Amino acid sequence: MSKLKNDTLLRALLRQPTPYTPVWLMRQAGRYLPEYKETRERAGDFMALCRNPDLATEITLQPLARFKLDAAILFSDILTIPDAMGLGLYFAENQGPKFTKPLRDERDIEQLRVPDPGSHLRYVMDAVSQIKKALDNELPLIGFSGSPFTLACYMIEGAASADFIQVKTMLYRRPDLLHQVLATNARAVTAYLNAQIESGAQVVMIFDTWGGILPSAAYHEFSLHYIEQILSNLVREHAGSRIPTIVFTKGGGEYLESIAATGCDAIGLDWRTDIGLARKRVGHQVALQGNLDPAVLLSSPDIIVKEVEKILQSFGSGNGHVFNLGHGVMQTTPPEHVAVMVDAVHDLSRNRH
Amino acid sequence: MSKLKNDTLLRALLRQPTPYTPVWLMRQAGRYLPEYKETRERAGDFMALCRNPDLATEITLQPLARFKLDAAILFSDILTIPDAMGLGLYFAENQGPKFTKPLRDERDIEQLRVPDPGSHLRYVMDAVSQIKKALDNELPLIGFSGSPFTLACYMIEGAASADFIQVKTMLYRRPDLLHQVLATNARAVTAYLNAQIESGAQVVMIFDTWGGILPSAAYHEFSLHYIEQILSNLVREHAGSRIPTIVFTKGGGEYLESIAATGCDAIGLDWRTDIGLARKRVGHQVALQGNLDPAVLLSSPDIIVKEVEKILQSFGSGNGHVFNLGHGVMQTTPPEHVAVMVDAVHDLSRNRH
Repeated sequence: MSKLKNDTLLRALLRQPTPYTPVWLMRQAGRYLPEYKETRERAGDFMALCRNPDLATEITLQPLARFKLDAAILFSDILTIPDAMGLGLYFAENQGPKFTKPLRDERDIEQLRVPDPGSHLRYVMDAVSQIKKALDNELPLIGFSGSPFTLACYMIEGAASADFIQVKTMLYRRPDLLHQVLATNARAVTAYLNAQIESGAQVVMIFDTWGGILPSAAYHEFSLHYIEQILSNLVREHAGSRIPTIVFTKGGGEYLESIAATGCDAIGLDWRTDIGLARKRVGHQVALQGNLDPAVLLSSPDIIVKEVEKILQSFGSGNGHVFNLGHGVMQTTPPEHVAVMVDAVHDLSRNRH
Repeated sequence: MSKLKNDTLLRALLRQPTPYTPVWLMRQAGRYLPEYKETRERAGDFMALCRNPDLATEITLQPLARFKLDAAILFSDILTIPDAMGLGLYFAENQGPKFTKPLRDERDIEQLRVPDPGSHLRYVMDAVSQIKKALDNELPLIGFSGSPFTLACYMIEGAASADFIQVKTMLYRRPDLLHQVLATNARAVTAYLNAQIESGAQVVMIFDTWGGILPSAAYHEFSLHYIEQILSNLVREHAGSRIPTIVFTKGGGEYLESIAATGCDAIGLDWRTDIGLARKRVGHQVALQGNLDPAVLLSSPDIIVKEVEKILQSFGSGNGHVFNLGHGVMQTTPPEHVAVMVDAVHDLSRNRH
């Protein structure tokens, strides 16, 4: 189905047979790797890394040189879109992302425009093309975006938040305004992901980091609805290959049935959901990705192997599983523990396929 | 079934008929009330309030003077038990609870003892007796404790944490040690809640604030198992009345079936779970408490009424619903909005009973 030397990820996402369970890790390129820290020091700040296609390529490839991963994922940030909308993304040391010009009133919202992926987000497309070329058809490249609601959280709060009071206040007092932001974000994410696909991304993933803070009805109305809108407008085939889609809502374990109904190919599970129960609930509709607790990688090789085995066993035999963590790699993770995990997934899953 | 003038809470928790849906709020006595701030200023720090039965009584009664609530809840902290174990609870300004002597090694854990509720926790029992007397059989009094796992989180981390790395590292590397802490905590919580019941608490609630951070299997093994142990050793009848029990796991929406199977009388739902779906899943076994998003109380009277109506409608007609928030009252909540909510619950639920 593709010229890829290792197409296990694509096949597993489409619930086709694979010789073993493919594996990649959220944040597989990042601060737990000494070579990442070295590259970052050269670049200066985090966004300088993302904006430089050479450096983004270098970083994307770093974990692939160390571990037998089955996919590369574009090195970038989920907040490139609001940055391209003019909100001024920056990273204060150890404080996570912030915006210099968050959405403060109705006028700000009315002035929001969908950024052209070919101009303000050109650096992302250049990185995708360059990484794709560097991968030389060895492994598939995953592109991604934040979900419309997750982007809106940062755009309205101006930063991550413990309780998202400003977003929720808008949601209850002025749902029309929040919907306006979300509709713009959804069009922006659609254009952004389609441009990534045109540039060479072979899988796309939507990170809904904050949808899980909402009450169930609001999750469906303000987060999942817009994800569904994106999915129905995405290029689903490119250069003769189907482009699988993955939706990950952190804290979305109660919503698997609704997420599966959006038309995505796979659901990313966070570390809390039992993958065996998830498979019983929706595994006839979608593939499942996940979901080792990232904290397991802080323990020891024998414990890591045991916990990997538990997840493989819980999923059971058959197709449709992509192994991953249930959240991003933690900064204090010893890189050699990642190697143990990756090898354990491959070794222990071979006899299940 | 009791001499209580208003026994709607007890009846609803036991899924018996009531003329309307009873309502109380998690953290109904607290920082959003000017009279609380005034009392607290007099007392000095937070623990001084908890340790003084006169002040604890005064604060417990404050929201009852303002709102037509159907229950009082003991004013205290979930961390009184580890404090009585000698870990040195204190509250740094705006930073939440901390311990001066968190559990740092195996020796600390081996030295942990179940505190005698009659000595080190005497001040809590004195507060319960005094509040009970002050209530004069108008309303029921709810006693409470943190869950064994939630207590362990603070005892091991020494404070609240974003990722609970130390707890999780112990869980994976030394599950035996964590089980030792949890077994001690479970015996301590059992003795503590039974003493509260003996002192006059007519309902007891277990707050499992952090069980929801665990993977599903670990939640069952390290949190719910010990809650079940407590429930099976609690005094379930006192002074001729049944003592209903409520279990609240924040982020526990995926586990309702298992929580219902512990033998509790009611499950507290956080603001995320759809109460109508929860009722379909477990409403034949237990009552449900919740679950308005606390952020709704920051909006406006008409929106509050609308959101209250949505929850009542989602639960549907019939018995077994106690209205509450899905988390504690937020500090910036206007007290008059709480009045709107309480009155709306009573008014709108009358025609459903």
